[in-house]
Amino acid sequence: MKRNLLEYNFPEDLKNMSQTELELLTYSIRDFLINKVSKTGGHLASNLGVVELTLALHQVFNCPTDKIIWDVGHQSYVHKILTGRGNEFDKLRQFNGLSGFPKASESPYDCYDTGHSSTSVSAAFGMAAARDIKKENHEVIAVIGDGALTGGMAYEAMNNIGDSKTKVIMVVNDNGMSISENIGGISKHLGNLRTSKGYLSAKKFIKNKIKNIPTVGEGIAKGLAEFKNDIKYSMLDKGGVIFEELGFTYFGPIDGHNLPQLIDVFNKAKKLDEPVVVHILTKKGKGYKNAEKNPGKFHGISAFNPETGEIMEKTDKLSYSAILGAYLSRKGEEDNSIVAITAAMCDATGLTPFMNKFPERFFDVGIAEEHAVSFACGLAKSGMKPLVAIYSSFLQRSYDQLIIDACMQNLPVVFAIDRAGVVGADGETHNGVFDISYLTQMPNMTVLTPADGNQFEAMLDYAFNLNAPCAIRYPRGTCEYNNNIMSTRTFDGKNVRIKEGEDVDIFACGKMLDTGKQIVEILKLNNIDCGLVDITTVKPMDLSLFNNNVKLLVTLEDNILIGGFGQQLTWALKDENIDILTFGWGDNFIPQGTFNELADKEGLTPEKISERICEYFERKA
Amino acid sequence: MKRNLLEYNFPEDLKNMSQTELELLTYSIRDFLINKVSKTGGHLASNLGVVELTLALHQVFNCPTDKIIWDVGHQSYVHKILTGRGNEFDKLRQFNGLSGFPKASESPYDCYDTGHSSTSVSAAFGMAAARDIKKENHEVIAVIGDGALTGGMAYEAMNNIGDSKTKVIMVVNDNGMSISENIGGISKHLGNLRTSKGYLSAKKFIKNKIKNIPTVGEGIAKGLAEFKNDIKYSMLDKGGVIFEELGFTYFGPIDGHNLPQLIDVFNKAKKLDEPVVVHILTKKGKGYKNAEKNPGKFHGISAFNPETGEIMEKTDKLSYSAILGAYLSRKGEEDNSIVAITAAMCDATGLTPFMNKFPERFFDVGIAEEHAVSFACGLAKSGMKPLVAIYSSFLQRSYDQLIIDACMQNLPVVFAIDRAGVVGADGETHNGVFDISYLTQMPNMTVLTPADGNQFEAMLDYAFNLNAPCAIRYPRGTCEYNNNIMSTRTFDGKNVRIKEGEDVDIFACGKMLDTGKQIVEILKLNNIDCGLVDITTVKPMDLSLFNNNVKLLVTLEDNILIGGFGQQLTWALKDENIDILTFGWGDNFIPQGTFNELADKEGLTPEKISERICEYFERKA
Repeated sequence: MKRNLLEYNFPEDLKNMSQTELELLTYSIRDFLINKVSKTGGHLASNLGVVELTLALHQVFNCPTDKIIWDVGHQSYVHKILTGRGNEFDKLRQFNGLSGFPKASESPYDCYDTGHSSTSVSAAFGMAAARDIKKENHEVIAVIGDGALTGGMAYEAMNNIGDSKTKVIMVVNDNGMSISENIGGISKHLGNLRTSKGYLSAKKFIKNKIKNIPTVGEGIAKGLAEFKNDIKYSMLDKGGVIFEELGFTYFGPIDGHNLPQLIDVFNKAKKLDEPVVVHILTKKGKGYKNAEKNPGKFHGISAFNPETGEIMEKTDKLSYSAILGAYLSRKGEEDNSIVAITAAMCDATGLTPFMNKFPERFFDVGIAEEHAVSFACGLAKSGMKPLVAIYSSFLQRSYDQLIIDACMQNLPVVFAIDRAGVVGADGETHNGVFDISYLTQMPNMTVLTPADGNQFEAMLDYAFNLNAPCAIRYPRGTCEYNNNIMSTRTFDGKNVRIKEGEDVDIFACGKMLDTGKQIVEILKLNNIDCGLVDITTVKPMDLSLFNNNVKLLVTLEDNILIGGFGQQLTWALKDENIDILTFGWGDNFIPQGTFNELADKEGLTPEKISERICEYFERKA
Repeated sequence: MKRNLLEYNFPEDLKNMSQTELELLTYSIRDFLINKVSKTGGHLASNLGVVELTLALHQVFNCPTDKIIWDVGHQSYVHKILTGRGNEFDKLRQFNGLSGFPKASESPYDCYDTGHSSTSVSAAFGMAAARDIKKENHEVIAVIGDGALTGGMAYEAMNNIGDSKTKVIMVVNDNGMSISENIGGISKHLGNLRTSKGYLSAKKFIKNKIKNIPTVGEGIAKGLAEFKNDIKYSMLDKGGVIFEELGFTYFGPIDGHNLPQLIDVFNKAKKLDEPVVVHILTKKGKGYKNAEKNPGKFHGISAFNPETGEIMEKTDKLSYSAILGAYLSRKGEEDNSIVAITAAMCDATGLTPFMNKFPERFFDVGIAEEHAVSFACGLAKSGMKPLVAIYSSFLQRSYDQLIIDACMQNLPVVFAIDRAGVVGADGETHNGVFDISYLTQMPNMTVLTPADGNQFEAMLDYAFNLNAPCAIRYPRGTCEYNNNIMSTRTFDGKNVRIKEGEDVDIFACGKMLDTGKQIVEILKLNNIDCGLVDITTVKPMDLSLFNNNVKLLVTLEDNILIGGFGQQLTWALKDENIDILTFGWGDNFIPQGTFNELADKEGLTPEKISERICEYFERKA
């Protein structure tokens, strides 16, 4: 047995390991994960939960010929260790470092990039269909959590696979919770399964029993078939029946921390030539006391003390999410028509205080962003004032419902769009850089971008009074917030001039106002008098503060340039005699890294933007 | 009994009708539908199928206090007749006329506007949740087809409702087919139900039997509970079990053309205080021989001869859809890695010839656009060349999958985007006017707009060779196509200059090239020399044909202006010294009407655009 996890030649070395060696390896892997993630931060609890599962998969299946697709993908750390990337964990989720999600660009073992929920089953079906067309012979495995099963597209895919009878192995990794608490009928269904002990052996027994009944005449055979069917529902597949009805053969529930059982069931699944569900039960945070006790905290965590589980860096500053939470639980008292909706992100979007105070007006709909929006529209249509809190990149799932349900009916729904702009360590799948572009396309939609916490509160007031759909998009992390002016700050839907300037005007959206302020200072040193406008309102476009006495107008947004604020302003001002420089993200996916690292690479730091402005004036001089 | 359907005071008059009167009414309604739709065109078959259902609903429930939400909504004609809009059917689906879909702006009886599939259950849950918060007391009914049940968001909603135990009545209108043939495990599941006769009575019998077992000691009670459970699966709910497992009480299957049974089951459903599914079996086209024989043809039909069922206006011209079909079945022979995917729109998108020729490489995934895209990505990732054919407005459902799965992985998927631009009679929910804006936002995506059928074919060749995601968006209806140049036309990804001009240049996307040609002629009469460029390639933006010798540049697109081609070009040319006029759709939802009617209203006819250009030159003169 090698001492150090990094000395192995994975995955080859796995194949010849004894049961005992594999069991010992689970300890090394958990130690490694806790040690590394305590320094870099990352998704810990979910990865601790899939150690045995991942080992069993790589024991039984031969990757990269066999394909494993990790739904959402933040549980792929063990897979990364076992496919030769253990030595890259010091730069996990950092600029130019190892991604926290599967990336084909990193390894041929990552067969499909994921990041958003519930895509794995569709992708697996695609790969399996391609295999069958090409008459190849390999396995395709989708590993999907019970939380991701609430996402409708997983159901769309299962429905399609069940009909086609194509061989796909779907591993349902059931830890009884998604990121928030688990939601829905399907979850209860899985819960029932969890409690049915001795399931597999009973199934085996009865299957054998049926097999041994001798062949008989037609009438009796029909009766027997019905009998088999009855047994199927009453005994064999009690609970697994949803999967069976959709056309899958169901194995489970299996103890997801029992390596021999896992290896056994995967070998069984491998032998079948039909769609298979393997339902395994795991414990999030398994093997690390702090995470087992509080898996939510250790879902996605920043650097922490591995002994105590305490977060290293603490801040007194509030996040936009926290401000939303406090605001809503005040507002909920004043106005009992306010309801709040989350798609499995109660804590992360700050809704927990509201949930605790007004449980009857709080709805966690599960990982189901499409449904969340139309559900909110139904509530609005019946006189409620719903607020839907969803991350910017996940709200992409609801593009059609935003247009057809919310905007076309012009319904008063407030969209609290968290994690807008570049998010940092989660990288390209999680960056919320499309929302200004896609929301401003929608007739009737108002789009607001707060620059501090007090303004955010005032915008929420404004939004709840608007009687039309209103999106407020704000970044991840902390913001300026002054407790003393809490109740006095107002917002009237107009942009705000921060400073007059003679030479150049900066129009800055939301968090970029801070960059704008720094540019003003830098330009002052260069004898350029720079004005600054806080673009609170991206849509409807407010041109009232446009000053055509300056030579240059500069726009700043933490959004892609295409279809964004800068392009739309350029178009709105095309008949004016003014030069315009627009700053935002270019036409590429933005990798992981800190905002500053990425802004520097893209030329979006105060220094680099100031340089561009100075160059302009030099050119024009 | 009144003679004329229009003489009734609906829905009030329904309440006091005898069984016989109601039965007679079904004949009047069917006659009326066939008569009216044969003149205007519209969705006939689905409405003929829901005559009894709609009568029964309005008999049992009291609208508008009780809320009925019609999923998709094209089956709402009978509902419109029964809520006082019978006299508006002469202008059905016409400019300023009656909509073919539910519209709250038309009537308080239309409680929720629909048009895209599978939203009704979410909206119904929202309305029911609002009712419970406000402690009101009315029913909320979602009427959803078996086809729409393949849409994931219906499942997301059911999952959420089942968990909440909120009273919602979901009527599954099962005609055994959606627009194309029905797909998936859920469909088979419904099929099994259809064949289980005498279901309801058996259920009743056993329920009574169980109720009569006397109370017993704890151990035996537990055994009994298990026994009940066994019976539940084996007898009571065989088939309805998916709904029951998700938390709904299931009634069915009911003959959807048997009025007394329908009225009876709705009265039963009304009495329960929990989520209920009423599963009814109907026949699309019921009562009109031509439609019963060919419900697909009579799904959405133009004006026809009611005697023979023959379409009135025929054209020899090919549609883009037909060209796609013929192209693909040729191309499929050359290249056996080509696969085609539709989301329940096989015939309408033109894929039928390919399906018939290469069934093993054809996939109808059901009404499941999200899954369709990720499934295609899985196929592409495994070396196939998938083409996904979806209507522009329905592809809005896949916005996130296009970004995260297709573009982020830069996969070679061809998106054949049918019904792009204004579609006419279907109106605002079906207009495909957002796609240029949302597709061009996506890094790695190529966006092409053909102006004729031969160019379309050449673009398909180009797209299949691109090795990256490529969207081709083309309008509804016919196009120019020259059989003789079929094989000689090529496309190199570049825009094409049609004509040089000294005064003004027109950059026209896709179908607007024709408008551009007319403008050139009109301007000639006004002594303005107008150049014309065929913008084949919206993304990546190709500026090579930009001519800065003209004074004015004009852009034409059948897309919204916000985020569209014109805005992006304006931005790309912002440092050039040229005036730009952009023509496209404004920031409003576009109602039903012919393209010409709507273009006239919006100022997008050749005449009105020419006028604007002439005004420009007068102003500058």
